Amino acid sequence: MNTQDKLRNPHLSEKIVTDQIAASWIKDGMTLGLSGFTRAGDAKAVPTALVERAKAEPMKVNVFTGASLGSDIDKKMAEVDLVNKRLPFQVDKTMRNKINTGQMWFIDQHLSHTAEALRQEVFGEIDFAIIEAIAITEDNRIIPTTSVGNSAAFVNHAKEVIVEINTAQPAALEGMHDIYELGEQGSRVPIPLTDSSDRIGETGIAVDPDKIRGIVFTNQEDSPSTVTPPDDDTEKIANHLIAFLEKENDEGRLPKTLAPLQSGIGTVANAVFSGLKNSRFTDLEVYSEVLQDSVFDLLDAGKVKMASGCSITLSEDKMNDVFPRLDDYKDRLVLRAQELSNHPEVIRRLGLISINTAVEADIYGNVNSTHVQGTKMMNGIGGSGDFARNARLGIFVTKSIAKNGDISSIVPFVSHVDHTEHDVDVLITEHGLADLRGLAPKERAKEIITNCADPLYKEQLLSYFDRAVEQVGGHTPHLLQEAFAWYKNFDEHGTMRERELVMN
Amino acid sequence: MNTQDKLRNPHLSEKIVTDQIAASWIKDGMTLGLSGFTRAGDAKAVPTALVERAKAEPMKVNVFTGASLGSDIDKKMAEVDLVNKRLPFQVDKTMRNKINTGQMWFIDQHLSHTAEALRQEVFGEIDFAIIEAIAITEDNRIIPTTSVGNSAAFVNHAKEVIVEINTAQPAALEGMHDIYELGEQGSRVPIPLTDSSDRIGETGIAVDPDKIRGIVFTNQEDSPSTVTPPDDDTEKIANHLIAFLEKENDEGRLPKTLAPLQSGIGTVANAVFSGLKNSRFTDLEVYSEVLQDSVFDLLDAGKVKMASGCSITLSEDKMNDVFPRLDDYKDRLVLRAQELSNHPEVIRRLGLISINTAVEADIYGNVNSTHVQGTKMMNGIGGSGDFARNARLGIFVTKSIAKNGDISSIVPFVSHVDHTEHDVDVLITEHGLADLRGLAPKERAKEIITNCADPLYKEQLLSYFDRAVEQVGGHTPHLLQEAFAWYKNFDEHGTMRERELVMN
Repeated sequence: MNTQDKLRNPHLSEKIVTDQIAASWIKDGMTLGLSGFTRAGDAKAVPTALVERAKAEPMKVNVFTGASLGSDIDKKMAEVDLVNKRLPFQVDKTMRNKINTGQMWFIDQHLSHTAEALRQEVFGEIDFAIIEAIAITEDNRIIPTTSVGNSAAFVNHAKEVIVEINTAQPAALEGMHDIYELGEQGSRVPIPLTDSSDRIGETGIAVDPDKIRGIVFTNQEDSPSTVTPPDDDTEKIANHLIAFLEKENDEGRLPKTLAPLQSGIGTVANAVFSGLKNSRFTDLEVYSEVLQDSVFDLLDAGKVKMASGCSITLSEDKMNDVFPRLDDYKDRLVLRAQELSNHPEVIRRLGLISINTAVEADIYGNVNSTHVQGTKMMNGIGGSGDFARNARLGIFVTKSIAKNGDISSIVPFVSHVDHTEHDVDVLITEHGLADLRGLAPKERAKEIITNCADPLYKEQLLSYFDRAVEQVGGHTPHLLQEAFAWYKNFDEHGTMRERELVMN
Repeated sequence: MNTQDKLRNPHLSEKIVTDQIAASWIKDGMTLGLSGFTRAGDAKAVPTALVERAKAEPMKVNVFTGASLGSDIDKKMAEVDLVNKRLPFQVDKTMRNKINTGQMWFIDQHLSHTAEALRQEVFGEIDFAIIEAIAITEDNRIIPTTSVGNSAAFVNHAKEVIVEINTAQPAALEGMHDIYELGEQGSRVPIPLTDSSDRIGETGIAVDPDKIRGIVFTNQEDSPSTVTPPDDDTEKIANHLIAFLEKENDEGRLPKTLAPLQSGIGTVANAVFSGLKNSRFTDLEVYSEVLQDSVFDLLDAGKVKMASGCSITLSEDKMNDVFPRLDDYKDRLVLRAQELSNHPEVIRRLGLISINTAVEADIYGNVNSTHVQGTKMMNGIGGSGDFARNARLGIFVTKSIAKNGDISSIVPFVSHVDHTEHDVDVLITEHGLADLRGLAPKERAKEIITNCADPLYKEQLLSYFDRAVEQVGGHTPHLLQEAFAWYKNFDEHGTMRERELVMN
């Protein structure tokens, strides 16, 4: 292999080491900042070597990332109890179990907030930033791979940096990144980004070469995403959403080009984007976190003219399709740090249309994005709060029921609140859409129960609401002693349905 | 009276009418946008005349404002059932009662969001903007009085405008306002404000003179604020906060000049600002909504060098003291629209230290700012969400108990969530301070119970927490069936205290 292409400052080649050697530098109690955002661009070799080491030599480190990792790294770390504290987001099942059984700490953070917390030294210093890269330039800039995440922040705030040059990542990614340092609060200038296509920074992360402790060469693709095809319900949700956007367009509140779109990951988002393909809307823009398969479909179809994200996370087929011709997208793709992709300043300025998934929503429009039955962490809030609060339209989607109807996703009082009634503009299930803008709580309850709840639960919800209005009243009527009874019913009888509902 | 000073475009004097005539133009079903923010700069004459008219001729209108009104206008409107829908904030007791008994609608909105909703035409058009002013300039700019609030947005989005020239307001206010129009989302430039002292707009609200339907002359002072002097507990809260800021300064996370300060209104805020007077901190800046008495004390003492706000709301004594010498403050005061004083872009850029009051907080750091017992609206969320989410430090303060100890302000699960666990950095009661930054939920619970809860409730909270960890576990352990039992206890036995706690 020709390392000169990859390490263009010739002095850096002296720093090449094996992953085992790099991992050996890490000490018990240290804090690591790893590249990686939604399975894309994660540091793979050194964390894996560290896991191997920890099998023989138990140790604990704090692990900070952009978002979720691929390559089963979170799983492997959890299996050997390597992690003391993890933030700001993860999706692995084994690690989730460790979090929920109290065997490790997890901080569930707005994805735009981690870099600010690092600047403010809330967590102290990062001992090692471990960053996957395409190359390091002659002027000492680390070129990230398929994600930017918090990598720039980790490099800036780390005592030492380990770079993983991954030769399996497409070299054509170089030039697609836009790395911009906001600077300290109080001495910042406005972020000069007024269009999703704007490039405001550099193509790599500047690093003091003396801070680079080691460079590891690897050759391992990102874990592909596993895209579930749309089912009937997700298609219905997508159709409700597109009909709503058409109505907004008809009534003059949105142009045919809509507004830059953000969507969480997963099957609903994919269904919505598929739906847009055959819609009246043209020259769309995406300003989001994760660029999934469907974004590339729309780029290919000429529907989307520009996509800005924080990572490219694709299925295996799509990787094989897109990566060889990545150059074709060069003028239409930008990859930014998550504090830029998710920055309130930019989100509000551009006026995004933001689509995220709820675990459950209540009759007043509060949304739970994170906790099962109010206690068990699912994945984390991710960027949903950054977007929903500041977007032009904060839209949440969920199927109305789960577990074959034994769980209603519309409940009297959500068991955990991640997005308050103040931040939820539109709620959609397969049954319909509730436009909550400009409505008071009791007006919202009627919209949500009527349009979004499953028929199995409509009567029960109405009964709760009517009795709350009647017996307690107030601006936001609740029967607090009954508000959470549905969860008890599910625990004890396996269903949230009526029979056992009313507590004594 | 010489109207030429006040109406400098001579054609405007033809539009002078009485308040009764102006009120007669308002029709049942209309939407009004009134100036006024926290008792300051409210339109006084026309709303009062409308109330008089409604006594004989029942009618309903929607009333949008900046925030709360003075001069008992909300009270008077509520008494005659004039209001169909009110937003985004109010504090009057009579109106609160109408809201909570379902006799009128109230939308509780982030104060920075109202202007965006108007731009997006969520509520349709405003029929009349009714704006208190010092004068209208020769180039047709309305000079606001003691607040800016949403006045510019109302003028921009109203079909017609009624101006109340209030000759009782200090003429020296002219020149202190900074009116900046953000423009439509998607075609906006960055807000060019990088320092609390920056002036980025004009000193008045541009208006098409043809849109001015009438001008009413009035002579009535703002309602003075009623400042409760600090008591033992508020002083303790202030001392904990200042000790914390000193520690942050000692550890290098904050400079001696701190960061621009925002504080909600009321006695704790005043106590904190009084405490700062004798602190080590110098050259302070205020970037807040309401500028209260204590801000002027600090300006006079030379501790605060610059104050930016959305309104000047003073006690009677302070009005008498400050208003005659208002010119002395001219270089140190700016009054902005609430979407600027509360804008996420500016708050995050400047890195504010934000201090707001909680009604109650739970052991995991969720905060209720609005609802008593989860159902009855108190005042509204105001700007607390704009600030807490985006500030460098989102600090919430509350006394640990209410009703002589029969209510604990620290509870297992707040009965309404306005600020989620993701947004609360620091919680303070008279007993102490919990620094929640970088902590996972179970770590937070220990900090909050140990440092903030009243001794009367510590054991009970610990018992709830320990049993939740033991019996249910998870990332955020809760006993959902018991979570709200404290409210039931209070309802049935007049106290949240132990004896009756555990439900069967």
